[in-house]
Amino acid sequence: MLTTNPFDDDKLREECGIFGIWGADGAASFVALGLHALQHRGQEAAGITSFDGHGFHTHRAMGHVAGNFDREEVIRSLTGRTSIGHVRYSTTGETALRNVQPLFAELSEGGFAVAHNGNLSNAMKLRRTLNRRGSIFQSTSDTEVIIHLVATSGYITPLDRLTDALKQVEGAYSLLVLTPNGLVATRDPLGIRPLVMGKLGEATIFASETVALDVIGATYLRDVEPGELVLVNDSGIRSFRPFQKVQARPCIFEHVYFSRPDSVAEGKSVYEVRKNIGAELAREAPVEADYVVPVPDSGVPAAIGYSQASGIPFELGIIRSHYVGRTFIQPTDGVRHLGVKLKHNANSALIHGKRIVLIDDSIVRGTTSVKIVQMMRDAGAREVHMRIASPPTRHSCFYGVDTPERAKLLAAQMGIEAMEDYINADSLAFVSLDGLYRAMGDARDAAAPQRCDACFSGDYPTRLTDLIDKEAADEKALALVASR
Amino acid sequence: MLTTNPFDDDKLREECGIFGIWGADGAASFVALGLHALQHRGQEAAGITSFDGHGFHTHRAMGHVAGNFDREEVIRSLTGRTSIGHVRYSTTGETALRNVQPLFAELSEGGFAVAHNGNLSNAMKLRRTLNRRGSIFQSTSDTEVIIHLVATSGYITPLDRLTDALKQVEGAYSLLVLTPNGLVATRDPLGIRPLVMGKLGEATIFASETVALDVIGATYLRDVEPGELVLVNDSGIRSFRPFQKVQARPCIFEHVYFSRPDSVAEGKSVYEVRKNIGAELAREAPVEADYVVPVPDSGVPAAIGYSQASGIPFELGIIRSHYVGRTFIQPTDGVRHLGVKLKHNANSALIHGKRIVLIDDSIVRGTTSVKIVQMMRDAGAREVHMRIASPPTRHSCFYGVDTPERAKLLAAQMGIEAMEDYINADSLAFVSLDGLYRAMGDARDAAAPQRCDACFSGDYPTRLTDLIDKEAADEKALALVASR
Amino acid sequence: MLTTNPFDDDKLREECGIFGIWGADGAASFVALGLHALQHRGQEAAGITSFDGHGFHTHRAMGHVAGNFDREEVIRSLTGRTSIGHVRYSTTGETALRNVQPLFAELSEGGFAVAHNGNLSNAMKLRRTLNRRGSIFQSTSDTEVIIHLVATSGYITPLDRLTDALKQVEGAYSLLVLTPNGLVATRDPLGIRPLVMGKLGEATIFASETVALDVIGATYLRDVEPGELVLVNDSGIRSFRPFQKVQARPCIFEHVYFSRPDSVAEGKSVYEVRKNIGAELAREAPVEADYVVPVPDSGVPAAIGYSQASGIPFELGIIRSHYVGRTFIQPTDGVRHLGVKLKHNANSALIHGKRIVLIDDSIVRGTTSVKIVQMMRDAGAREVHMRIASPPTRHSCFYGVDTPERAKLLAAQMGIEAMEDYINADSLAFVSLDGLYRAMGDARDAAAPQRCDACFSGDYPTRLTDLIDKEAADEKALALVASR
Amino acid sequence: MLTTNPFDDDKLREECGIFGIWGADGAASFVALGLHALQHRGQEAAGITSFDGHGFHTHRAMGHVAGNFDREEVIRSLTGRTSIGHVRYSTTGETALRNVQPLFAELSEGGFAVAHNGNLSNAMKLRRTLNRRGSIFQSTSDTEVIIHLVATSGYITPLDRLTDALKQVEGAYSLLVLTPNGLVATRDPLGIRPLVMGKLGEATIFASETVALDVIGATYLRDVEPGELVLVNDSGIRSFRPFQKVQARPCIFEHVYFSRPDSVAEGKSVYEVRKNIGAELAREAPVEADYVVPVPDSGVPAAIGYSQASGIPFELGIIRSHYVGRTFIQPTDGVRHLGVKLKHNANSALIHGKRIVLIDDSIVRGTTSVKIVQMMRDAGAREVHMRIASPPTRHSCFYGVDTPERAKLLAAQMGIEAMEDYINADSLAFVSLDGLYRAMGDARDAAAPQRCDACFSGDYPTRLTDLIDKEAADEKALALVASR
Repeated sequence: MLTTNPFDDDKLREECGIFGIWGADGAASFVALGLHALQHRGQEAAGITSFDGHGFHTHRAMGHVAGNFDREEVIRSLTGRTSIGHVRYSTTGETALRNVQPLFAELSEGGFAVAHNGNLSNAMKLRRTLNRRGSIFQSTSDTEVIIHLVATSGYITPLDRLTDALKQVEGAYSLLVLTPNGLVATRDPLGIRPLVMGKLGEATIFASETVALDVIGATYLRDVEPGELVLVNDSGIRSFRPFQKVQARPCIFEHVYFSRPDSVAEGKSVYEVRKNIGAELAREAPVEADYVVPVPDSGVPAAIGYSQASGIPFELGIIRSHYVGRTFIQPTDGVRHLGVKLKHNANSALIHGKRIVLIDDSIVRGTTSVKIVQMMRDAGAREVHMRIASPPTRHSCFYGVDTPERAKLLAAQMGIEAMEDYINADSLAFVSLDGLYRAMGDARDAAAPQRCDACFSGDYPTRLTDLIDKEAADEKALALVASR
Repeated sequence: MLTTNPFDDDKLREECGIFGIWGADGAASFVALGLHALQHRGQEAAGITSFDGHGFHTHRAMGHVAGNFDREEVIRSLTGRTSIGHVRYSTTGETALRNVQPLFAELSEGGFAVAHNGNLSNAMKLRRTLNRRGSIFQSTSDTEVIIHLVATSGYITPLDRLTDALKQVEGAYSLLVLTPNGLVATRDPLGIRPLVMGKLGEATIFASETVALDVIGATYLRDVEPGELVLVNDSGIRSFRPFQKVQARPCIFEHVYFSRPDSVAEGKSVYEVRKNIGAELAREAPVEADYVVPVPDSGVPAAIGYSQASGIPFELGIIRSHYVGRTFIQPTDGVRHLGVKLKHNANSALIHGKRIVLIDDSIVRGTTSVKIVQMMRDAGAREVHMRIASPPTRHSCFYGVDTPERAKLLAAQMGIEAMEDYINADSLAFVSLDGLYRAMGDARDAAAPQRCDACFSGDYPTRLTDLIDKEAADEKALALVASR
Repeated sequence: MLTTNPFDDDKLREECGIFGIWGADGAASFVALGLHALQHRGQEAAGITSFDGHGFHTHRAMGHVAGNFDREEVIRSLTGRTSIGHVRYSTTGETALRNVQPLFAELSEGGFAVAHNGNLSNAMKLRRTLNRRGSIFQSTSDTEVIIHLVATSGYITPLDRLTDALKQVEGAYSLLVLTPNGLVATRDPLGIRPLVMGKLGEATIFASETVALDVIGATYLRDVEPGELVLVNDSGIRSFRPFQKVQARPCIFEHVYFSRPDSVAEGKSVYEVRKNIGAELAREAPVEADYVVPVPDSGVPAAIGYSQASGIPFELGIIRSHYVGRTFIQPTDGVRHLGVKLKHNANSALIHGKRIVLIDDSIVRGTTSVKIVQMMRDAGAREVHMRIASPPTRHSCFYGVDTPERAKLLAAQMGIEAMEDYINADSLAFVSLDGLYRAMGDARDAAAPQRCDACFSGDYPTRLTDLIDKEAADEKALALVASR
Repeated sequence: MLTTNPFDDDKLREECGIFGIWGADGAASFVALGLHALQHRGQEAAGITSFDGHGFHTHRAMGHVAGNFDREEVIRSLTGRTSIGHVRYSTTGETALRNVQPLFAELSEGGFAVAHNGNLSNAMKLRRTLNRRGSIFQSTSDTEVIIHLVATSGYITPLDRLTDALKQVEGAYSLLVLTPNGLVATRDPLGIRPLVMGKLGEATIFASETVALDVIGATYLRDVEPGELVLVNDSGIRSFRPFQKVQARPCIFEHVYFSRPDSVAEGKSVYEVRKNIGAELAREAPVEADYVVPVPDSGVPAAIGYSQASGIPFELGIIRSHYVGRTFIQPTDGVRHLGVKLKHNANSALIHGKRIVLIDDSIVRGTTSVKIVQMMRDAGAREVHMRIASPPTRHSCFYGVDTPERAKLLAAQMGIEAMEDYINADSLAFVSLDGLYRAMGDARDAAAPQRCDACFSGDYPTRLTDLIDKEAADEKALALVASR
């Protein structure tokens, strides 16, 4: 409950979660637990690679961690005291499994396994170059570019080869790399995606979120810092900073929706930040109403914050089925026209005749909002006021978040009043970008924002090489057509 | 969210949900949707039978409704304008599928399908008698007794045969029976298990709970009454009352835990009753504290009630993972000793240093309570006060609820103070039985309780024939041993 | 090789094989091996029931014995020193598994498992009667009739109840019945289907064919005699003859095609009988040719016989793929028009320019014969003479053999000359019915044939009650239509 | 029947079969049929790649062609007018599917798919070199070396790059390569593995054996010649000979066992060659006996040849079960000690008291021969004379045949007399190497044998680079140990 809602296709989706451990017997079993706690960051596939001093062992599977990585024969086969794992979204078909991480390659200096959270914005360009030089790709993943850059690097030591490779890539990456020489954890210079470090006895742990430390009883030490490269092996833990220092820009949406509310991100309680956003909303967009009703589950903390700041009672006006994890496909046309309420159902006895403030975390396409407002009206609500715990989502993400193309983002198509009409609410308000920063205890520096808020502001922190190339190519194609 | 929690093995479990429809094209597709909404009443197996004027069609499967009954070829094979379905708990192995309902038999007067919510308390005795007369049972289900009683009845018409059969059984039953002559819905004279009736266009619908009406957009008409037998066919809807009138005793636990909070049971909003119980608790067992924290998800409505009555803020101190539906089996001993928090995790940033009131719906074995209290203490809670939204569960249920044997019920073993010590709470209180009735708007008549509250009071509304026979047999065996 | 060819849908198919053992540790593992050796008698499903002194254990599965009954956990679950098993053809869908034998029922006097080879010719009539009295059938199998007759019998002892049941049924049955009182093997008074008895150490074994004894290293003792009932238990082996003695009529087609050539049936080597039939054919229908070519695999022994009697060399002019077990379904229309030769391929280098005698065991629909003759001509054969090692198949079987309805039997539709034209052979001849009996060392007594040869002669040894009832009903329906 | 026997683990196993077609609608459906006919050359996995002018489509699966490549959705997904396919033996586990061919890579000049029959004898050495240069391998297959050599070649055109690659490899290869520029078929300069070319309408076809042409009704044109490279595309068919001409050495074992008897290899009927070998055996090693009995199925043609040359009648003394395709695993120790006869059974009624000549195609480990001779003796044979239709197999194959290591080859361990004792035969004889060549119409030139007969003679036609490297490494390791 209250974690990101992976089943709602009207939400942005984080594309990955990673977890690694060095120095524990049965390392893979810890990775399995950690990935289970990070399951909300990627539900379509998972993989674990372990190293036992002699060889590497990998198991990858489509589907959830539970059901795949809790089978004893699987965990037993992943021997060794060091292991990394990955959860992700993935595509279908034969090639799908090839894209499931950790990716592994036998390089001339030994095995090399990598788990990557994020997305490279110049992967296509690098891939074309490598291809021309004779590198053969086995997946369509941008992550594989890193492996080929390492394999063909002119440097000698594994760490130098990795650094050489990372200096050529642009975009977002939190990486775990497993080689016979140790476990490497690194984060791009902007620190767009999160990566935390913890300790359990003698073992060192890296994970996308602190909940994955909680689940195995580990202690949080610190964040891996933007641009930092941490190497753990039998000689201890060493930190390297191969990149020029720049201002970090961690993703702000992690606080809005991606991270679990019981995680602590950048030293802040996600739950409390969300309650603060709700309180900001109550101040920025107050309304007279009978109940504050969250859109479950992700709207709950902001709704509690709104309720406490406004004094309007918090009530469960929408009940969510436990069973939506397994999508029920409506089998025949006969029932498709019914406004079937498989995921959510109105608590009609409560709602009837009342004025309600609906709290949701974000609006992407708007399809869910339309249905939820209508459901409230059908249940007899007198007034429906929608309050959104993030600014309007107007721009696509190129750093590892599955956003629809811009044309499908409701806020990219119309203004707030038009959206209010579209979703048929009595009123609609979003928290401001400044309000969002305030809820995190900051004041936004518009000239040099402290976070990546590109999905709201369009202010991208890196070059978008592949996008520019593609747009250039499209333009050329268009010009060609025009000149005929 | 907030529905009954089917995954917690420290809860009582409703054993069945039923749904039927007469007079709609593609009847089975409505049944599939209805069963999906009743999935919390039985997750291990499901079945649907339809009748198309010529023949009966049945599909049964282990597992959830989604994934089995949303496959187009399945729904297409279940042709006809009338259909019934069932969700249940079930056992494993080859015989398992035989016990999945609807049970079907080809009787000499035609097909006979039955879906049953409840449990007969003299099934074993009747089975032995039928066996001696040459009846061959194909399942171990108590429900099959009803079919053989109908098959061997001396009466002529199907309705008379059914009535003859029902007069011989004791216990709890809400039944849907499908024959070529129509759809029959009936409820035992005490009305122990629920059954409601609704309408969608010209179609008549029966379901265990009103949420199943909501999901297909149907309108609630009324409850099928205790001892009533409703026959729906092309001649219309007729009601029969073949039994002597007795005072009804509907199950009170439906309100405490089984039913979804968005259902309306016996004309009362389940959500509101639960909030009322929380308010009663706040009055009966007040405490000074910083936060009211629900044990998710089933404790939420009572916690909101407690918070509103006491003025102590409602906060999410425990976060529940979305992914517990698929149980993660801890694969190796190495990680088993960790206090792994796969289902729930403390919101430590919130809890640390605070006094909290934990609200749960019931205590069965106590195993979950022990862990939850400890989790709160590990997260730094200063005081942990446990409040339970039902009286102590001291007795087994024989009417279709999966209760552990008495010896495993914590409240059957010890008093409240001892329980307080056992779960290591700073204080522990249960709502009183009278308080529970008050929350429903009633005053309990101790001489003739208006509901079945046997799990709390031990006051069983029927003879427990099979139990008495078994105890007699055990005693005889014991005497035999003693006399040697 | 050379066994009956189960994959050819232009052959008659035996519908069942049975195997039972009393008095061996791990009894079920012997049954699995025995059934594997009898796999040619039924490929669609298999089942094994064991009894371990306390309870009965059953496993049934669609598919082959190998892959289902060689799994250690399956065999381990079938505990006990006595066990019976069955292989069969079966239908698809949910109900399919219910028809897989052994059928089992918990009767009032204890468990009762039965495996049946054969078919009852008055099962429908008995079923209707039992149904009216309140018996509920769980399968559509005729065998279940026997169980209900036993369950409702007025006699006391299990053996008397079984005898009472068998006296009411008509048709063909070789039965193995497992009860807590012992293992019963019995054969109908005409002995239509085979059943042999063997010994392995102290254990007693029953099987449809002697190959099943060979495979476990057991010794053949004798046939269970027509009308005999053998009871094996800890008191030893006892034989009963509850029926009036009549002349036996064992199925002659077992020798022609069903039994494996390495079996000994009625004391005769199946291989030798088939070679004798070939020699009879050479005498009855000689022809000048270069090669004798068998249609593999079932035509091989008769072809060797024909070659040795005629002096024409035996050659492999048709090669059969090993992989036809798994039918290759031609996926697209594009290749369907090709005369694809997935099962058989001509040995063209050999055939080209030669006169050949093709030997096959029987002609049912004629579809395969047409293709094989054409394949020989395409390969360049100068003349193709077809010789069939059985008389024309003109009548359906009602005793446990899967025959097409009469209208589809080629020999029921046309004379031999017309068939010769139809299959486009230079000549066509069948062995005579008398020749067939001669090959077995007998002279056929036309007034009272020593065997059931109804498929050739139409002389059925029992009343065909269900067929007569059906024809009467059809006639009545027809009359009704006519009278309108 | 009578094809190579893929199920006998006491036989050498061909490791691959390949099939390709250019210029037919629904090309993949022809490939599926062709592979089905080549199934005896590789049963563990299969794959098909098609090219439709725009993209490449691949489907690979563990298991048989039937069941995987006769599914309509699979064939439909493999669009295009050109396609290649492969059947092979393979290993288990996640990596298994990566080794299933056709292998595919996206090179900078476009897609490149390859299907390979044979084995490279310097693959390990080439792999190490490529690895050092930064090439990353995705499989453990020797075939992938060819792809990386093409990818990193300094030449420009695809054909030059392929030729460049092939000039660096040693060993045996018949290859089909599919690129956007056309379909290439090529055979190593020695022509060790077979490859034939055929025609169906306008389409050009390549296959390992002629049976694959027969099955789709195509006409045989000619063999692809040793060292030839045939390119087929829209410009027609062109032949290239990039290699220096050397004397060809096609594998002689193809005639002894691998090829189907209905294939024509090097212009000779495989069936007739095998009969000729039998006749040679009769002349070289005559014996007085009652019956000639083949070990089914592969011994049948030689047995017919022996019978015709010697005048001793051919009889089926051993019956082979049809169902050995699915191996029956003996589940418990209790039955394992029995001499269970799951695959073969003696035709005891025939054998008893007789002197028999057993004909088998080869002896590898000798395990089957021991059992078969014992089976004949148990069945009462008076004398058992074993005759083998190939010379003693004394050496391993490094060219794509799965041979046991030398130490396990019976003939590498002992002389013929010792083998006679070991298998307990009354006499044992092998055809001579010269006799084998005579059966093919040749006289063996001992100085420069016309075929690869290394498994008999030890005369390998190529360097065995990887073997030599490995032996050197082993020796070095040994020396190191010794020097301590």
